[in-house]
Amino acid sequence: MKVLFGGDYNPEQWPETVWDEDYKLFDLAGIDTVTVGVFAWASTQPGPDVYDFAVLDRVVERAAAEGRAVCLATGTGALPPWLARAHPEVNRTDFEGRRHRYGQRHNACPSSPVFRRLSAELARRVGQRYAAHPSVVAWHVGNEYGGACYCDLCAEAFRDWLRARYGSLDALNEAWYTTFWSHTFTDWAQIEPPSALTEHWRGPDHTAFPTMTLDYLRFTSDALLANFIDEKAAIRESSPDIPVTTNFMGLYRPIDYHRWAPHLDFASWDNYPPDDRSHARMALAHDLMRGLKDGAPFWLMEQTPSFTACRDVNPLKRPGIMRLWSWQAVAHGADAVLFFQLRASRGACEKYHGAVIGHAGRSDTRVFTEVAALGAELSRLGDATLGARTPAGVALLFDWDSWWALEITDGPSRLVRYLDVVLAYYRALWDAGVDVDVLPVAADLSSYDVVVAPALYMVKGDLAARLEQVADRGGSVLTTFLSGRADENNNAFGTDVPGPLGPLLGVRVDEWDARGADVVNPVTLGGATVASRLLFELVVPQGAEVVGTYGADFYAGTPAVTRNAFGAGHGWYVGAGLDQAGVSWVVERVLDGHDLRGPYPHVPDLETTTRVAADGTRLRFLLNHGADAVDIVARAGGADLLTGGRVEAGDPIGLPPGGVLVLRED
Amino acid sequence: MKVLFGGDYNPEQWPETVWDEDYKLFDLAGIDTVTVGVFAWASTQPGPDVYDFAVLDRVVERAAAEGRAVCLATGTGALPPWLARAHPEVNRTDFEGRRHRYGQRHNACPSSPVFRRLSAELARRVGQRYAAHPSVVAWHVGNEYGGACYCDLCAEAFRDWLRARYGSLDALNEAWYTTFWSHTFTDWAQIEPPSALTEHWRGPDHTAFPTMTLDYLRFTSDALLANFIDEKAAIRESSPDIPVTTNFMGLYRPIDYHRWAPHLDFASWDNYPPDDRSHARMALAHDLMRGLKDGAPFWLMEQTPSFTACRDVNPLKRPGIMRLWSWQAVAHGADAVLFFQLRASRGACEKYHGAVIGHAGRSDTRVFTEVAALGAELSRLGDATLGARTPAGVALLFDWDSWWALEITDGPSRLVRYLDVVLAYYRALWDAGVDVDVLPVAADLSSYDVVVAPALYMVKGDLAARLEQVADRGGSVLTTFLSGRADENNNAFGTDVPGPLGPLLGVRVDEWDARGADVVNPVTLGGATVASRLLFELVVPQGAEVVGTYGADFYAGTPAVTRNAFGAGHGWYVGAGLDQAGVSWVVERVLDGHDLRGPYPHVPDLETTTRVAADGTRLRFLLNHGADAVDIVARAGGADLLTGGRVEAGDPIGLPPGGVLVLRED
Amino acid sequence: MKVLFGGDYNPEQWPETVWDEDYKLFDLAGIDTVTVGVFAWASTQPGPDVYDFAVLDRVVERAAAEGRAVCLATGTGALPPWLARAHPEVNRTDFEGRRHRYGQRHNACPSSPVFRRLSAELARRVGQRYAAHPSVVAWHVGNEYGGACYCDLCAEAFRDWLRARYGSLDALNEAWYTTFWSHTFTDWAQIEPPSALTEHWRGPDHTAFPTMTLDYLRFTSDALLANFIDEKAAIRESSPDIPVTTNFMGLYRPIDYHRWAPHLDFASWDNYPPDDRSHARMALAHDLMRGLKDGAPFWLMEQTPSFTACRDVNPLKRPGIMRLWSWQAVAHGADAVLFFQLRASRGACEKYHGAVIGHAGRSDTRVFTEVAALGAELSRLGDATLGARTPAGVALLFDWDSWWALEITDGPSRLVRYLDVVLAYYRALWDAGVDVDVLPVAADLSSYDVVVAPALYMVKGDLAARLEQVADRGGSVLTTFLSGRADENNNAFGTDVPGPLGPLLGVRVDEWDARGADVVNPVTLGGATVASRLLFELVVPQGAEVVGTYGADFYAGTPAVTRNAFGAGHGWYVGAGLDQAGVSWVVERVLDGHDLRGPYPHVPDLETTTRVAADGTRLRFLLNHGADAVDIVARAGGADLLTGGRVEAGDPIGLPPGGVLVLRED
Repeated sequence: MKVLFGGDYNPEQWPETVWDEDYKLFDLAGIDTVTVGVFAWASTQPGPDVYDFAVLDRVVERAAAEGRAVCLATGTGALPPWLARAHPEVNRTDFEGRRHRYGQRHNACPSSPVFRRLSAELARRVGQRYAAHPSVVAWHVGNEYGGACYCDLCAEAFRDWLRARYGSLDALNEAWYTTFWSHTFTDWAQIEPPSALTEHWRGPDHTAFPTMTLDYLRFTSDALLANFIDEKAAIRESSPDIPVTTNFMGLYRPIDYHRWAPHLDFASWDNYPPDDRSHARMALAHDLMRGLKDGAPFWLMEQTPSFTACRDVNPLKRPGIMRLWSWQAVAHGADAVLFFQLRASRGACEKYHGAVIGHAGRSDTRVFTEVAALGAELSRLGDATLGARTPAGVALLFDWDSWWALEITDGPSRLVRYLDVVLAYYRALWDAGVDVDVLPVAADLSSYDVVVAPALYMVKGDLAARLEQVADRGGSVLTTFLSGRADENNNAFGTDVPGPLGPLLGVRVDEWDARGADVVNPVTLGGATVASRLLFELVVPQGAEVVGTYGADFYAGTPAVTRNAFGAGHGWYVGAGLDQAGVSWVVERVLDGHDLRGPYPHVPDLETTTRVAADGTRLRFLLNHGADAVDIVARAGGADLLTGGRVEAGDPIGLPPGGVLVLRED
Repeated sequence: MKVLFGGDYNPEQWPETVWDEDYKLFDLAGIDTVTVGVFAWASTQPGPDVYDFAVLDRVVERAAAEGRAVCLATGTGALPPWLARAHPEVNRTDFEGRRHRYGQRHNACPSSPVFRRLSAELARRVGQRYAAHPSVVAWHVGNEYGGACYCDLCAEAFRDWLRARYGSLDALNEAWYTTFWSHTFTDWAQIEPPSALTEHWRGPDHTAFPTMTLDYLRFTSDALLANFIDEKAAIRESSPDIPVTTNFMGLYRPIDYHRWAPHLDFASWDNYPPDDRSHARMALAHDLMRGLKDGAPFWLMEQTPSFTACRDVNPLKRPGIMRLWSWQAVAHGADAVLFFQLRASRGACEKYHGAVIGHAGRSDTRVFTEVAALGAELSRLGDATLGARTPAGVALLFDWDSWWALEITDGPSRLVRYLDVVLAYYRALWDAGVDVDVLPVAADLSSYDVVVAPALYMVKGDLAARLEQVADRGGSVLTTFLSGRADENNNAFGTDVPGPLGPLLGVRVDEWDARGADVVNPVTLGGATVASRLLFELVVPQGAEVVGTYGADFYAGTPAVTRNAFGAGHGWYVGAGLDQAGVSWVVERVLDGHDLRGPYPHVPDLETTTRVAADGTRLRFLLNHGADAVDIVARAGGADLLTGGRVEAGDPIGLPPGGVLVLRED
Repeated sequence: MKVLFGGDYNPEQWPETVWDEDYKLFDLAGIDTVTVGVFAWASTQPGPDVYDFAVLDRVVERAAAEGRAVCLATGTGALPPWLARAHPEVNRTDFEGRRHRYGQRHNACPSSPVFRRLSAELARRVGQRYAAHPSVVAWHVGNEYGGACYCDLCAEAFRDWLRARYGSLDALNEAWYTTFWSHTFTDWAQIEPPSALTEHWRGPDHTAFPTMTLDYLRFTSDALLANFIDEKAAIRESSPDIPVTTNFMGLYRPIDYHRWAPHLDFASWDNYPPDDRSHARMALAHDLMRGLKDGAPFWLMEQTPSFTACRDVNPLKRPGIMRLWSWQAVAHGADAVLFFQLRASRGACEKYHGAVIGHAGRSDTRVFTEVAALGAELSRLGDATLGARTPAGVALLFDWDSWWALEITDGPSRLVRYLDVVLAYYRALWDAGVDVDVLPVAADLSSYDVVVAPALYMVKGDLAARLEQVADRGGSVLTTFLSGRADENNNAFGTDVPGPLGPLLGVRVDEWDARGADVVNPVTLGGATVASRLLFELVVPQGAEVVGTYGADFYAGTPAVTRNAFGAGHGWYVGAGLDQAGVSWVVERVLDGHDLRGPYPHVPDLETTTRVAADGTRLRFLLNHGADAVDIVARAGGADLLTGGRVEAGDPIGLPPGGVLVLRED
């Protein structure tokens, strides 16, 4: 048992003579796992009544014969042409109201009965045929679910979804606030999907009725989930035990992964960061993915060994970066490190997406060499990390409803983006080397000392009470501007902002100022002055003490940051759009009251994480994301799992750029 | 009698228990007027054959019982869902050719017979029910008319409109210049609305046939006007006297308010400037609105007390700004100061649009406090300003046809925008404290000493002769580049530019140069040198004297500004895109020949206006829009109507930032 | 016999009384040629069964009576309204899937049987009527062909085109690489045009299946060519000898002019450069147009005498520029210099497009005066240049397939644009005064010493072998990054990059880096250091010597430019996106081995070209495009054809800004 290593493999794209070369190269690179069949539908079902597994059989059999594990896809990642032609309604209707014709991938209307029937049937047959195959270690349903459809079938399905949610039109009219602009619905049939042809202008985020749009986002997430569940259920008919997953996309707005998580047996995701300075952002995504299944290990299902093709500019991963990011995944809980892709396509739009094996099939390229070195390293590691979990004292709340509601609602500022806010607070924790669980708002918070909830726009259910309990027992709760703004229907509370969070935070907010990114209001925090931008809430203390104040404009001298004693703990409120220095200052003050920092905090670009194995073994990961070497002194001794050597407490540790240390602490 | 104070009020959005709080707060704030029912259609007509005024009855009765005046809307600002569902053709077809489904507001096809019948019928019933109600002081038809429809019903209505305008296809073909690009129409049915599917590319301003597009703009303005007239006529059946209005939007391109003005009993408008440095722009809009009804007072129908929600960034109005801008409206002729909105909606897209009363219903917010202080101030003012008119010696011509024609015609430069040009010349007059009437080109000009007509692209009817008369009797006429370019059909005159304005101006223009905003050509004016940009006409004097010359390029030394003696007066021509300093220099030279400057000209950011009551009383308004205090010496004595004190000639007057002085001069 | 001089003339737009004025002015200006009837369809066929040549008769007869040559258009540049109304399918369906209604020009679906029948019939009748007319010197078919249609008729025609190209679906599936994303087509009817509704996102360059899109570009070019051929064949029925052309647009991506060229009797094009600093770009376009017909002279069919109207900003041509650019056309092979347009339209969207005669009909404008001066000059020149050809030792390969494939394929960088690369290499040759033939990749290369093939993305047929032959016999072949990347189906070769060019170039490329425009990697070339940007290929020599190396990043010190000895010559490879200085350095090194530079190389902004008449007379053109005078010493003596004077070898030659010298060398 070891960390799985390999990736997407599409040998059906080339003659079988090439397969021999591939497998030789897999051996050289230590590749033990292949993901196959993701886009096989046109091959496995070439016509309405014909199933043909000849090619897939050969692919799976060859993998098995070579001793590779197979992550087997149901193959529904893209529709085959015959299906789209025979049933035009399986093609989506887009936000502009245009019925699409056949093309691209991830392209099915989720509400189409034909699609639902045929996709489940294909999954059923794949399950029947391969469930007993010893090499199959996981089922890969669909691919990178996403997108939305606005066809009449979806409109009808949306109405059903709404009936189930609201029960009555009266309740819906109240939730959607339809007295505004004469929208009182008197018949379910009057409800249309919110789109460019109905409630929207300037794209999907500008809507006359944000709650209608919010519900369509929820509906779409649920409709695609139903597609996943269709296929999973069909597989389960013949495969009761092999785990089922689908590959998520990390910080992906269109799908509420928290709603999906219970239906997956394990989480997996594809890591394509926007640039090579995204280490903290990737860490957040890893922690979010780990948080989907209560901290259980996940798979890194895809990453590129070298470059992408789909960006305007596709930089090359520098030497060592692929290794570093692979280890980062393991450091955050991955038990598999997989690539897209093992061999490069010669045609179509991913011709220039990087691969372990390029068009020429060489083994002497830099990229292949680095992959092979990582394969060897993972083999040396063995099973040390498998199943290990992260011991976190800090919970960061991540909420798709807040993300959606904040970004689809007019005012105060379109420049305030949910992810930017979340990432700034996560970054402050990352810099301090704190292990963080990134959790849904409904999660059990009873084991955490600190709960950070940036831009907690929507406050649902008993969340306010559960946050109060954290403070009550001595914990710290930190939240920011644009929190406590809306109920589960995205309507303002008829009370002071921040609504039900008011008692915990001891403040109220009557008004707020928004400015362009070029306007800075300096905020005084302790002896320091930091910058704030974009949003400036005017905070009126209702018991809270003032921690920081604005330095400019007519509200100079009024509170920008406050702290409220609550029970044995505190509620912190940040009303200003602080820069990273300001956010970090506040987070540090929150941490001061708790013993949660990592062993090497605030070493620039040094990431540290912890995993604890089932037997209690503590693994410490150190990763140098910087361009300079890092030199520290070991705080604890242990075994260096990559070199086989030892580190003693007090020893100097030198990590070159890209350097990785995995220490099994004594 | 006093300036009306209040605004839009939508109590149907919350339980009647809240209404009690509202009215207590209205009392605190001196609010005496409520605008109700603007979006009531779904409530007042919940189905095709059902009218239900129960809620509106209670709203109106409550207002009356509390002694408030009611501005009563017909409620056709948005369609109800049932109507859109039953008659899909009432939904507009957009510029892209997409038939919309139900959504948003201001959403009806103006040519739809069903819409026209039902909207008039609703207005008829509202009129019948409430005409005798003593609290109703005005009828508010529709809301912020605008937008266009491109459906087949509109195509047919457009053809009818064209038949009425041109009489024959031959005349239309000539007007539209259809020999160009093989467009000779031989049947009315061949004519399509100009859209993205026909004559346009790159949006509504790029068209192969600008005159067709110009006519569609005129048609659309008329079609929406017909909707207004439908409703007004229906109201008039039972309400012969109560004045009827609809809320305009100031400098709004899509509707030719001059065509509408005769049909309104008084003008009203909604003031949402793009930023907080728009004082001169707002002044221009006020003067334009006042000019719609020959100088009669208008209503400020909407403004926000604090912030908008619909912008990307929605800044907070600074303390004092709401008061300052309210007084600016009065200074320019407003007899009502109203807000959108009195209480904030808890949901939908205007949840964060500012309100006198916020979600929490507080009276101790800064915003509420400032509103209440203004209410008290207006009460102290009483009837002093009601009905007073502005004595202006300068007319500025504002012409929607020129605006449209200039901006939809290819060449010379898309960067030259009509409003920018108009505003620069208005700004020069504003700086000089000159009272200005902003008028349509058909207005009687016989009482003005100076007529300024920036970018008078189109010269229609006897306008050239009337401008010559102004000069003939000793007046000054000033116009600019891109004037005298087109006849009423937007076709070039077959003579030298500036066409019929040639004799008055004494110049001709054979060629012109356009450059990007980064290219400056210095222009020498007297001893000064200013910058010109974007457009540089090469002016050939035909009798005019040279006032300013270009300083660069191959036309260095040739005229950029000229003055032509004509009768007892002058015709001025500015051929260059002068910067504000240049425009102001020219305007000052024009003013030099006349006694029209205000008493405190050229005090930075100090606005002065005059209103004269029916009894001849002269009211002088001084408003400080700057960030610094203004100190001046009184030129005349009088009563300070806001403090009750006196100012004597020669007294120092100190106006703090945002300061307002209303002086009833002796 | 002389260079034809005149242009587009649309007298049908104004009364015949104006024609008299026009012809007087033509005499003044030396105008001997008029292009008429380009948009006459609505006039010549006013209804389905009616042809009416009355107006065109008068236009042609008048021209003939006045002794002017006529370039006679078939008149199919725009559909008449009645046709679009009667047969809606002649209107195109756009990339967004929207069926257009009647509007604009160049607006017919190329696959519409009705359009094909009626356009050919109109051409047939025009041919019959005027073929014997002595004034007709050329046929002008259609106008500025371009655009694409995505309707069902085109879909069917595309399938036919594909059947003809591939023979079988198996071959198509392989070429399109349809195993990727489950796209295996099992019926021709499943194939849809690639559009926003099928394979595309973010516009026409982002496609899931680049080969499908490439084929649609090829199909569209061929479909429009079929329209041209339809009309030409119809004309040929009655006019066997008069040459037929259509006006091309130079560096125009949508049409593969090389596929069209065999079907034209002579090439002609419209020159509207993006700005007034485009002399090298215009030169490239002229050379490309000349290369279409094996170096035979072409016509400059359109240029503006003053300004365009269709740009956002339309600058005026400075004095002398119209003359300079007219001579540039002649210098590169034009035997006709024509304007759009002789008299300005008074209406529609080209009202402000410049004309020889403006709206007022003056002869004393600067523009008219310059036109007349040029007319006189061309008369003095007489027949000296007619039929003369360009003796070029350098071939630059220009390939629409490479242009398309490079720009529609994802990765490595969307910022690398084919024309930018080509122009940089052309510019280097232009600076050196080298006469260049711009040729298709299938051209005979046996007479060239140097072949430059920038960004030769696609390598088809025996091209690699023909390039090797150039080097083999002592020539130099130069190519760059992104060459040798794809076969004729845009699929990667299964070998090392640069595919079949590898032996000639002696390098391989395993990986490449792309960066934003702000990232510079310095490249050392000889003793100099230049900048490279956007794309950095990591070049591994396979026999080539290193000419330049990268200076930064992890690949610092590795090759950026190489030279490979091959046969008696060399293959050069530039792997980096060099700036102009770098490109020029490399091109100069290539030229060093050959005697190809012009007599006055590297004089800033001085253009020199050569034409050789049938009798061997050598004409040397010198044009000063700079803002400063150029002073050189004559390298050869000869007759100054514009002044009638002499220049002796060793004489000083002074060319003022805009200056032109045409020297018939001794």
